[in-house]
Amino acid sequence: MTKIISVVPNISEGLDAAFIEGLRARLEAVPELMVLDVAMDQVRNRTIFSFTGPREAVFQGGFLVYEAALGRIDMRHHEGEYPRIGAVDAFPFVALKNATVEEAAEWAQAFAQEVGQRFQVPVYLFGEAARTPMRRDIEAIREGEYEGFAQKMADPAWKPDFGPDTFPADKGATMIGARLPIVNLKAYLTTGDEEAAEWTAHALSGATSGMPGVKFYPGLDRTRGLALLNITVGNYRATPLYRILGAIRTELHRFGAGISRVETVGLVPQGALIDSALHHLQVVGFQEEEVVETRLDQILSQRFTLG
Amino acid sequence: MTKIISVVPNISEGLDAAFIEGLRARLEAVPELMVLDVAMDQVRNRTIFSFTGPREAVFQGGFLVYEAALGRIDMRHHEGEYPRIGAVDAFPFVALKNATVEEAAEWAQAFAQEVGQRFQVPVYLFGEAARTPMRRDIEAIREGEYEGFAQKMADPAWKPDFGPDTFPADKGATMIGARLPIVNLKAYLTTGDEEAAEWTAHALSGATSGMPGVKFYPGLDRTRGLALLNITVGNYRATPLYRILGAIRTELHRFGAGISRVETVGLVPQGALIDSALHHLQVVGFQEEEVVETRLDQILSQRFTLG
Repeated sequence: MTKIISVVPNISEGLDAAFIEGLRARLEAVPELMVLDVAMDQVRNRTIFSFTGPREAVFQGGFLVYEAALGRIDMRHHEGEYPRIGAVDAFPFVALKNATVEEAAEWAQAFAQEVGQRFQVPVYLFGEAARTPMRRDIEAIREGEYEGFAQKMADPAWKPDFGPDTFPADKGATMIGARLPIVNLKAYLTTGDEEAAEWTAHALSGATSGMPGVKFYPGLDRTRGLALLNITVGNYRATPLYRILGAIRTELHRFGAGISRVETVGLVPQGALIDSALHHLQVVGFQEEEVVETRLDQILSQRFTLG
Repeated sequence: MTKIISVVPNISEGLDAAFIEGLRARLEAVPELMVLDVAMDQVRNRTIFSFTGPREAVFQGGFLVYEAALGRIDMRHHEGEYPRIGAVDAFPFVALKNATVEEAAEWAQAFAQEVGQRFQVPVYLFGEAARTPMRRDIEAIREGEYEGFAQKMADPAWKPDFGPDTFPADKGATMIGARLPIVNLKAYLTTGDEEAAEWTAHALSGATSGMPGVKFYPGLDRTRGLALLNITVGNYRATPLYRILGAIRTELHRFGAGISRVETVGLVPQGALIDSALHHLQVVGFQEEEVVETRLDQILSQRFTLG
């Protein structure tokens, strides 16, 4: 069964199309590497690559990204709207299919060690690859940003996981980590009362009372006249969708309100939906290998391997 | 994206291992055909084959099954515990992955026409391939069984869809159809009161009041001391799992009882679970192409096709 871990490096260059296309071409030339997407963002002056393949190919492609970006980008002259700490700002490994987030974390850690040595850039492990709870949240590492990072690194608590202990002003620092695919939802309330959305977002976003790794942004859909919540779920295994929806319904009860409809934004992993189905159907002991499509993948990939 | 339709022919021979192994070997020799399973059943004196592949391969394999079974089995001498009407009793086409049941029905109809002409056997279309509502239920066609089938065919209402109008005593008749994968559930109640299970099964199995294509069998788990329902879902798209569970909970309310746990038996299609997740999460407008794994299949199969 094919294990699919993808990487989604963000680099701090979104204007130089020739450079980006050149890097894409070099990635596509790596044997067995598959480029899934390249998204240039001129306003934020950054580009997000997405590629996958076997471990060797992903690592080789990753080193190409560091080599090219660190050779091209001088952070002392970088301007853009998005918070960032370095030329290769973040490099997440995402457990996409038939792979656990622990496997993605193992890839990330091995890759990060090599990047620190080879490119002499400070490396912070984040997400499921983090070695301390404080570094699980990528925003906590990014705090202070490029402009404040030399000072941040002076604090021993912010010694990097790999690479030099001092901040190279041209390269900046880099964050390498592992995560599940992020799930983005938009929940429309049954009311136009923005206070209901604000209360709920506040109640569920607290550092202690909140849901770990889940972010809530209140808003209003003027066309529909309905308050809404934008929801970002960092780890749908740790915080299943049914529990998030249940918590929202509990808070909205105070306003005599509920959820009128939910929309998904972007893709959703099979497991995030199946978890919620099993909960509501009261199914116990179910494994994802018992899904018809997953079992078929196993059978067919074995056949192809055996010839 | 690979479309996977499998076939699950049942033949009325479960004792002659050399014959079954010979047929398996002939199937495996068909280019691009993949045998998924062969299950001989001596008690019932029948064997269930399961194979898949591109349309051409599946048809070629199917003709091999008819040729071999009709050449080997003489129904005048067949004995076994399972109800059956012919040497190749049933030949379902199952929409397993990236295929709709309508596509499976189209395959079944084309295959059935050819079988009727080539082998001079009466063919009945069933399930989603049926041309009349009465023939959707395979049990309605099978009623009367081999022993009563010559008489049944005398009724113009039971003229076959293809093949001769008279019953060949040696071959019997055959049923070719299309369906989704069957979902089997076991729901344990919160009570040991068998009447609650019996009431619920009776209430939901009625010809008019019941849930179409869903069968309920009441029982008792003596070890746990809990009544239970065995549930067979013929078309999880037409009757989603959440609706079945909801109907059971409604009936059990009369006894102050509920469902304590549900177990799945065998494999469950992704779509059956996702439908129920979407319902409870109140997600609208979601397409299966928005599942990470499904989208990845699309992307990766395109890459491989393009080289």
